[in-house]
Amino acid sequence: MSEFLKVKTADEVLSILDGIQPLSPEPVSLDIACGRRLASDITAAEQVPHFSRAMMDGYAVRARDTFGASESIPALLERLGEVLMGEASRLSVTPGKAVEVPTGGMLPEGADAVVMIEYTSALDNTAIEITRPAAPGENVLKTGDDIASGEVLFRKGALLRPQDIGVLAALGIVEVDVFRAPLVALISTGDEIVPVETHPLPPGKVRDINSFSLTALIESTGARVGMRKRVPDRFEELVSSCREAISGHDVILLSGGSSVGVRDYTARVLADLPESELLVHGVAIRPGKPTILGRAGRALFWGLPGQPVSALITCRAFVLPSLRKLQGMMETELEHTRVLGAVLNRQLPSVHGRTDYVPVSLSRGSDASIEASPVFGKSGAISTLARADGYVVIPEHVEGLDKGTEVSVFLF
Amino acid sequence: MSEFLKVKTADEVLSILDGIQPLSPEPVSLDIACGRRLASDITAAEQVPHFSRAMMDGYAVRARDTFGASESIPALLERLGEVLMGEASRLSVTPGKAVEVPTGGMLPEGADAVVMIEYTSALDNTAIEITRPAAPGENVLKTGDDIASGEVLFRKGALLRPQDIGVLAALGIVEVDVFRAPLVALISTGDEIVPVETHPLPPGKVRDINSFSLTALIESTGARVGMRKRVPDRFEELVSSCREAISGHDVILLSGGSSVGVRDYTARVLADLPESELLVHGVAIRPGKPTILGRAGRALFWGLPGQPVSALITCRAFVLPSLRKLQGMMETELEHTRVLGAVLNRQLPSVHGRTDYVPVSLSRGSDASIEASPVFGKSGAISTLARADGYVVIPEHVEGLDKGTEVSVFLF
Repeated sequence: MSEFLKVKTADEVLSILDGIQPLSPEPVSLDIACGRRLASDITAAEQVPHFSRAMMDGYAVRARDTFGASESIPALLERLGEVLMGEASRLSVTPGKAVEVPTGGMLPEGADAVVMIEYTSALDNTAIEITRPAAPGENVLKTGDDIASGEVLFRKGALLRPQDIGVLAALGIVEVDVFRAPLVALISTGDEIVPVETHPLPPGKVRDINSFSLTALIESTGARVGMRKRVPDRFEELVSSCREAISGHDVILLSGGSSVGVRDYTARVLADLPESELLVHGVAIRPGKPTILGRAGRALFWGLPGQPVSALITCRAFVLPSLRKLQGMMETELEHTRVLGAVLNRQLPSVHGRTDYVPVSLSRGSDASIEASPVFGKSGAISTLARADGYVVIPEHVEGLDKGTEVSVFLF
Repeated sequence: MSEFLKVKTADEVLSILDGIQPLSPEPVSLDIACGRRLASDITAAEQVPHFSRAMMDGYAVRARDTFGASESIPALLERLGEVLMGEASRLSVTPGKAVEVPTGGMLPEGADAVVMIEYTSALDNTAIEITRPAAPGENVLKTGDDIASGEVLFRKGALLRPQDIGVLAALGIVEVDVFRAPLVALISTGDEIVPVETHPLPPGKVRDINSFSLTALIESTGARVGMRKRVPDRFEELVSSCREAISGHDVILLSGGSSVGVRDYTARVLADLPESELLVHGVAIRPGKPTILGRAGRALFWGLPGQPVSALITCRAFVLPSLRKLQGMMETELEHTRVLGAVLNRQLPSVHGRTDYVPVSLSRGSDASIEASPVFGKSGAISTLARADGYVVIPEHVEGLDKGTEVSVFLF
């Protein structure tokens, strides 16, 4: 099979990722559940609120007793007393009666509306005037109005946000089953790679950038990085490091080299691992063509180019979606977050049959629109990414984008 | 001074927040620096790369030796040997000579370009043919091409992202000074508030939703929550809890009640704290009018409504920006992240003189545009926020938005 045929398109890789199944569920405390995805549906076991609550300070009344009330012809009601915050009232609102109630207070029996304090005036200790009619249910959150018992609140795969944590707290749920966060092993290979703290750098050597930048990127999605290792370009050593990583890690990410031979080298390492399978052997993208995806037993196996810019872009474009799938992201989800519409402020050339990822910086245009400017720089310069706010994707069937095109910017 | 005059607009509150100074700097390891903001400029102390690197597999040559080379009239060069990855080469490229070099390898002395391996053919062990000319600098990342020594790479206040961590790693910087992350004390007040794990709920009581939902929201910005406490609505107890929180916390956030009197109550608590100052006493917004901002000694003091929806919205709209300022966010920064353009799919009424925050859900429209649908529900129902993807802000001087209006959605 020729090299050309083996290379997959970006879309083909993404559809392979769509098939990734989530990791096993684990129970976590509600305290640390934000940002995790539910491993099962959540159904409300009780009603919220579990009593009818006043939503304004005022008087709990029978709405019909206020019908027709106005400034000139107020309704006259008898004040029976007041509801204390956080307590059930023993008072009952019968025809012609009213009970004072604070916001959030429990509506007394018999009442079906609250007249705001502004529309009432006390004539003496027991007589009050109502100057506006209240409709039944007005200023009241009735039992179950917020959440009905038996209601499915969240579906399996839902990402828990602060307000969702609030809904769970409202129901008294203090522990939830979420999909386990993937543990990733990061292996940096290359005879030129030295520890980051190396000072001064010997000629020909470069610091191990990827183990820091990829860790930061991976952990931003909620996954965790376990083993981090630098391994020289020696086949046996790479294989044994990968075998070590397989036990206890869900994902093995090997970043190394950009030489022509490296892709096949990484594929050979994968082939040497138990129960391994090669799924993707090169992707028609720039940068990042030598990207590899496979499986080794239960672990997902990524081979990324060693060049730090390519490694970051391919990690963002492919590894992060795979980590989100392991964490239970559903296919149907609208991935709208962290994508911004902008107008391209110059022409971007591209090549048919290849997906390009172009770093751009953003600025406010004269008409308050957002402008995306491609960040140019020598290929492979990591400082170009540091000057960028995100990237634009030029799909494989598009030969460049014109100045003024509206583009989606995937924010860093 | 009348109540009306004391209430500030949303913009007025935001400009007060603009004046907040960052907390003190602290050194952190590069491992955990992602998401933090730099407390000082970072200047490059060395060049990146610190040697000229080949960016392709091929032959290091003197570009002028390849000028005019073509398929039909190739240039003939003598192969001196090869550069090993990660090593300095002792070979020197003199006129008519070439040295094989891998991607990322160190360019040997005398060479100024790399001819890709695809455009060369070896005639024997020492003679190679070049079939395409290379321009000086082609396929080479020269010393300092990525980062020049003395270059200011990051300004004080810059938010460190994965690629920025990569740039710092490239320079061998393993520790950076960042602004300290604020420690927040959360106090939930209200006689109706009971612990979340309470089962069954007594009549009139509600669970302490805010201590969970606000913690999740606050920690999503990189701030940390320290003290979390439920306090009944008793003045002395509130004051003593706040006094306890002042030592050791940067921010005190009191959420409680929605009664008319509560705002003044919280303000009185603030007034009773040492070196306190009231900055905002009510905001012309919906929801969240009873929001209070002040200072108590060095600590920032927020009073939010106790109603969970109002608390979440005001926390997002005002408290989070204040936390970002404490962490060193600069005023000039373009806050484009987590804002998405969408088209409103129905009319939204509003009132002049008040800023409204309206929860919306997002869906893909028929023409691939993104539609924002207001999420309606009883006021105060937290389930409405759980069904929303973000919110739309209707500014104070706008009386509602028409269907079809392009809106900015602040994503949850």
